[in-house]
Amino acid sequence: MATKLEDIVSLCKRRGFIFPGSDVYGGMAGTWDFGPLGVSLKKNIMDAWWKFFVEKRDDMFGVDAAIIMNPRTWVASGHTATFADPLVECKECKSRFRADKIAEGISESVTTEEFLETHTKCPVCGKENWGPIRKFNMMFSTHVGAVLPEDTKENPELAEKNIAYLRPETAQGIFTNYKNVVDTIYPNLPFGLAQQGKAFRNEISPRDFILRDRECSQMEIEYFVRPDAWEADFEKMRALQHEFLEGVMELPAENIHELEVPAEDRAHYSKRTIDFMFDYPNGEEELMGLAYRTDFDLSNIQRESGKSMEYRDKNTGETFIPHVIEPSIGVERLFLAIMSTAYTEEEKDGKTRVLLKLPENLAPYHFCVSPLLKNKPELVEKAREVFSMLKQKYGNVTWDDSGNIGKRYMKQDEIGTPKCIVVDFDTLEDGTVTVRDRDTTEQTRVKIEEL
Amino acid sequence: MATKLEDIVSLCKRRGFIFPGSDVYGGMAGTWDFGPLGVSLKKNIMDAWWKFFVEKRDDMFGVDAAIIMNPRTWVASGHTATFADPLVECKECKSRFRADKIAEGISESVTTEEFLETHTKCPVCGKENWGPIRKFNMMFSTHVGAVLPEDTKENPELAEKNIAYLRPETAQGIFTNYKNVVDTIYPNLPFGLAQQGKAFRNEISPRDFILRDRECSQMEIEYFVRPDAWEADFEKMRALQHEFLEGVMELPAENIHELEVPAEDRAHYSKRTIDFMFDYPNGEEELMGLAYRTDFDLSNIQRESGKSMEYRDKNTGETFIPHVIEPSIGVERLFLAIMSTAYTEEEKDGKTRVLLKLPENLAPYHFCVSPLLKNKPELVEKAREVFSMLKQKYGNVTWDDSGNIGKRYMKQDEIGTPKCIVVDFDTLEDGTVTVRDRDTTEQTRVKIEEL
Repeated sequence: MATKLEDIVSLCKRRGFIFPGSDVYGGMAGTWDFGPLGVSLKKNIMDAWWKFFVEKRDDMFGVDAAIIMNPRTWVASGHTATFADPLVECKECKSRFRADKIAEGISESVTTEEFLETHTKCPVCGKENWGPIRKFNMMFSTHVGAVLPEDTKENPELAEKNIAYLRPETAQGIFTNYKNVVDTIYPNLPFGLAQQGKAFRNEISPRDFILRDRECSQMEIEYFVRPDAWEADFEKMRALQHEFLEGVMELPAENIHELEVPAEDRAHYSKRTIDFMFDYPNGEEELMGLAYRTDFDLSNIQRESGKSMEYRDKNTGETFIPHVIEPSIGVERLFLAIMSTAYTEEEKDGKTRVLLKLPENLAPYHFCVSPLLKNKPELVEKAREVFSMLKQKYGNVTWDDSGNIGKRYMKQDEIGTPKCIVVDFDTLEDGTVTVRDRDTTEQTRVKIEEL
Repeated sequence: MATKLEDIVSLCKRRGFIFPGSDVYGGMAGTWDFGPLGVSLKKNIMDAWWKFFVEKRDDMFGVDAAIIMNPRTWVASGHTATFADPLVECKECKSRFRADKIAEGISESVTTEEFLETHTKCPVCGKENWGPIRKFNMMFSTHVGAVLPEDTKENPELAEKNIAYLRPETAQGIFTNYKNVVDTIYPNLPFGLAQQGKAFRNEISPRDFILRDRECSQMEIEYFVRPDAWEADFEKMRALQHEFLEGVMELPAENIHELEVPAEDRAHYSKRTIDFMFDYPNGEEELMGLAYRTDFDLSNIQRESGKSMEYRDKNTGETFIPHVIEPSIGVERLFLAIMSTAYTEEEKDGKTRVLLKLPENLAPYHFCVSPLLKNKPELVEKAREVFSMLKQKYGNVTWDDSGNIGKRYMKQDEIGTPKCIVVDFDTLEDGTVTVRDRDTTEQTRVKIEEL
């Protein structure tokens, strides 16, 4: 049975994985809050990525830059000039839309004339009376320092001078620290700088659950290489991504499709890009990107800052600006890929069993401990003892004494707990417990000390 | 020898712990970027907190809310109305200042008249010609959705309607999810919701390194309790904070001072607050706060949202709004407390040795592996072998073959690596390595397989 996105959204809300942002106030479009289960899964994903790409390797180092950066960053990167969507306003009802989303067959670089020729009607009022296409920059802007709201009118120069942006990508927080890192820890090429953190994009119409949100967590690596070695390092990074996605995240290889992005569709800075597409419930969508960014960013920073970004080879003495291979993934996109892979509905005895077949290393809880009956103090006491022991040992262990045992299994299946441990009267006799497997539902007796 | 803040700032920059934000562009006041060493230390601190307060406990759960929240959040919390500093402008040179920072003996609630009576001269131009005191709200504002820069002038209603703020504290991201959590995982009282994440405050004059920055990482718990049990739960949380700060973070108890905040100095929502003060190099400063917030926040949310925040006791059937105990700590403040504690200068043979006596569980690297001589391939090869083995086993291991062995020890001392492992010619003979202790500088021979 094909998994539907709505089923996952519903489970995420019902079981405390993900809630709509600011839910209690009717929401805040394009934002999502992670609940107790979602935080655990998200943290497990991010920690596994960090361990795989940074801690276990000797050519990768972490950075963690501020979200609010000097605005010259975005001039140098090109975001100030070009990170924009085409916005069009209906002159009748004043509604605003992203032009390329309401008209067919036009691109992001549509002109006013081209748009008018499509004879699109306003999706809100049905009229056809459009203003010009305007470029809407997707960076969230703010003012830093002592700028009052009235300054934007009364003192626009001061307001303009103090404008700043929420970073639309984490990548520039890495590039701007490249020189700091080279000057302090002198790594040999090739080396990578890795960062995890929030990025913000003011999407005109956020959509598709957590796939296109206004606030997302990125995990990016800028891998600095010798200009003449980029092809080999690109292949190395490409293989590593598969190893991580398929080996560590346990995503099925057959659901990941490499899309070699043709020259005309690549970002202006890229000489080669592979999009890793994933079969989401709603269709194929980008999961992550791998781009050869050349020396585009470091050269821009060198020009804008007037500071040399050259690297001096310790052995040969050569100096050059390193080139960059960038694997970039959004945590939410990976989260949803994992949830879609794990989400399973099984028919059994005329009933539907919903379960999340999460990999053991990612599941929010490894074990759930229960007393068979909650009104038997001797069972509860023994079960608490087992629970405390496992909790101290593993951390990710949950307690459940709600409802009957069938309902508890149902709940633990839905949150992806691999093993349920039940303490019953036999436990008091022989020190064994029932261990029930999430995927097979098989139950075995295991001695407490062997857990 | 008393540690100076400048020494720590200098070491942080020199060794890749912390750089000024957007350094390459001349900085961005009030922001800081963590380099490779700083990221590791910061992550170790945050993970240790999460493990201690969330994973090891059965009464705590995580949440991770969006940074951009529905603006009604800040109306309900009181931030829109009251989270403001007194701003004053010099009419001569147009410089702006926080009034209570440039005049003596006045408070944050100073009036224009009171300020003028202080006869303060402008710190920039020296004149005394002031405009009125205006309230400057410290929340960073932005616009969400299709609002163009020119709208703030041409279409102010649209701009006003779409205004949003970067959260000035993580706490409200917890309170707004209280109901979601209660409705999905039904925890028994008392229970806590914990969150780690960024918060933003538009300080007029950021200062004191990372102590008062514009962007910081908070770790907060809202502990929901029965209204009649708050005193006992307050004491429980108080003891837990000491256990964490002194036991896990290994801060000296004698440098932590509890300050019982008197009623007139407490935030309006608090009925009891203890500030945990720490002896920083620049003097005593707040490290963290423990506040009894009553039902202030949940009651405000109930009023603003029209949704019941009542909790129903599963055993007695009683309904009531829980009260809240809040331990709140800034990661940067804790980071600096740990760095100040660890920073040590020792005189030996007429030379000064600088070392960071970081606790083993927090140090960026556990081990450094080196070949005694880098031009002996057989030593390098053996050392790489030891390095790879330890790296796969522990992750937090570094390699160093730069300079001579003395310089390497100096560097590893400065970044707080507890043990340096050196592979020499004896290693090739008998399979032992030199293990050199950071704190004692003592060297012992250890078999590789016993590392």
